[in-house]
Amino acid sequence: MAEDGVKTIGWVGTGVMGAPMCGHLLDAGYEVRVTNRTQQRALALVERGAKWCSTPAEAARGADMVVTIVGYPADVREVTLGPDGVLGAVQRGAIVADMTTSEPQLAKEIFEAAAGQGVGSLDAPVSGGDVGARNATLVVMAGGREQDFERALPVFERLGKTVTLEGGPGAGQHTKMANQIAIASGMIGVCEALFYARRADLDVAKVIETIAPGAAGSWSLSNYGPRALRGDFEPGFKVDHFIKDLGIALAEARRMKLALPGLALAEQLYVATSARGLGQKGTHSLLLALGELSGASWGAGPG
Amino acid sequence: MAEDGVKTIGWVGTGVMGAPMCGHLLDAGYEVRVTNRTQQRALALVERGAKWCSTPAEAARGADMVVTIVGYPADVREVTLGPDGVLGAVQRGAIVADMTTSEPQLAKEIFEAAAGQGVGSLDAPVSGGDVGARNATLVVMAGGREQDFERALPVFERLGKTVTLEGGPGAGQHTKMANQIAIASGMIGVCEALFYARRADLDVAKVIETIAPGAAGSWSLSNYGPRALRGDFEPGFKVDHFIKDLGIALAEARRMKLALPGLALAEQLYVATSARGLGQKGTHSLLLALGELSGASWGAGPG
Repeated sequence: MAEDGVKTIGWVGTGVMGAPMCGHLLDAGYEVRVTNRTQQRALALVERGAKWCSTPAEAARGADMVVTIVGYPADVREVTLGPDGVLGAVQRGAIVADMTTSEPQLAKEIFEAAAGQGVGSLDAPVSGGDVGARNATLVVMAGGREQDFERALPVFERLGKTVTLEGGPGAGQHTKMANQIAIASGMIGVCEALFYARRADLDVAKVIETIAPGAAGSWSLSNYGPRALRGDFEPGFKVDHFIKDLGIALAEARRMKLALPGLALAEQLYVATSARGLGQKGTHSLLLALGELSGASWGAGPG
Repeated sequence: MAEDGVKTIGWVGTGVMGAPMCGHLLDAGYEVRVTNRTQQRALALVERGAKWCSTPAEAARGADMVVTIVGYPADVREVTLGPDGVLGAVQRGAIVADMTTSEPQLAKEIFEAAAGQGVGSLDAPVSGGDVGARNATLVVMAGGREQDFERALPVFERLGKTVTLEGGPGAGQHTKMANQIAIASGMIGVCEALFYARRADLDVAKVIETIAPGAAGSWSLSNYGPRALRGDFEPGFKVDHFIKDLGIALAEARRMKLALPGLALAEQLYVATSARGLGQKGTHSLLLALGELSGASWGAGPG
């Protein structure tokens, strides 16, 4: 039985986010059973003491808590509900936590399936990017039952600086969607303001300095503005991942019969950004796509 | 001759911004000659020692510096270049400064006309709203010649906490436009995120608290989010004034052949907001118009 403190953790997904997060749990002394679609990417963790498992089911076997952090909702479904999935092997009384940014409806479906076999379930997507994952400064937005959240909290606190239970099943994913919706249109504002400033022959660095402390200020302006000025469009957060998230948000808004024209425009502009070969660049490379829309080069201007 | 320090100031426009700004100059000991379309709104300043003048020309007569802060670009044109305008009476060696948010092209036109009669000209719009005007914490974004800016600086510093010369004539207005462009789409992101959160039955206050410190954070989210939660849609900055500014920005972008789809959407959504009777409310009342778009009431949800 796993009703006491979490000691053994099954970990599914060792990508750019999952690998450093799992590493923090090894450092904290948890016994970790790890699996990943590509075994190669889990080897460093195995060398540090994690036990390699060939399937999510095997990683889940005997664990007090199982964390999944994979790519798309379809991957979440496969590793959780699929034939070799977590719920086929996890013990009664354990907790499963999906930290992928995924669909609120799928989170509710997994919660119901888990509850049917006496397993707690949390959706717990994060923000803060790969830097936050490496430095354990993520924001964890959880949805589920309070008692499951309390048991998982010591684990989450190894991964992030802010950990909040936002509500019932799906509430973590919904909160992450609200986060992405605010970022999406905000980034349009930042990129359009920067391009306008450059086309107007302003000293763009000075403009950022002038407007960032006031009502136009945002995390995106202060963090991505200077990077764009240096011509640095590395992620941060990748355009193609953002398109996935915005697609989920649009589908959820549609389901709730909520029209969000700004979100729809943002998604289209990011599709255009990806179409121009920038899918693996940072979200602020929207700036480059905006310029190309007008046949204008970002690099050519002053400042 | 007015080549030395500014002692006498002509002040044109005593609206919600202009009146408190002019008051700060009276407090600082400047001799002020004031005019306004509606005399009534200048009386408090006259009681405090300003000399009432019936036209902008009369206010400008003998002044070392003339400040205009009126409503629309057409008003700026009238009070500056019109028959009873400032440039018809201002002395050689003086400086005129337009602090209205107005057209960069008009700022250049006024600069040229002023230069032709030996008068310095600055465009110097502000951000910070009526609160910033009352507390003298405005941001002043100036365009023009360095020597004119240096002479006007002691006056500007009575009005704002940040005063920057952004470049040549028009650069102040262009900077203000960049500021408004960033705010416009940013506010769409904030309002859509808040409405999404409420429709998803989240605790919206908790969502703001969770996402505001991270990549979704912005001045608008932190300042207008809580007001919207309280059902407080008072300005701040009025929707109808914002529509004016966005129209100027769109026209300038068009002139520069720069397509800004986010700005275009924002302007349309604000027109819709005004059309629903919210033109005198704050810019965050976009939230209400967004809800009505989906037949949803902001007030009806939890949180």
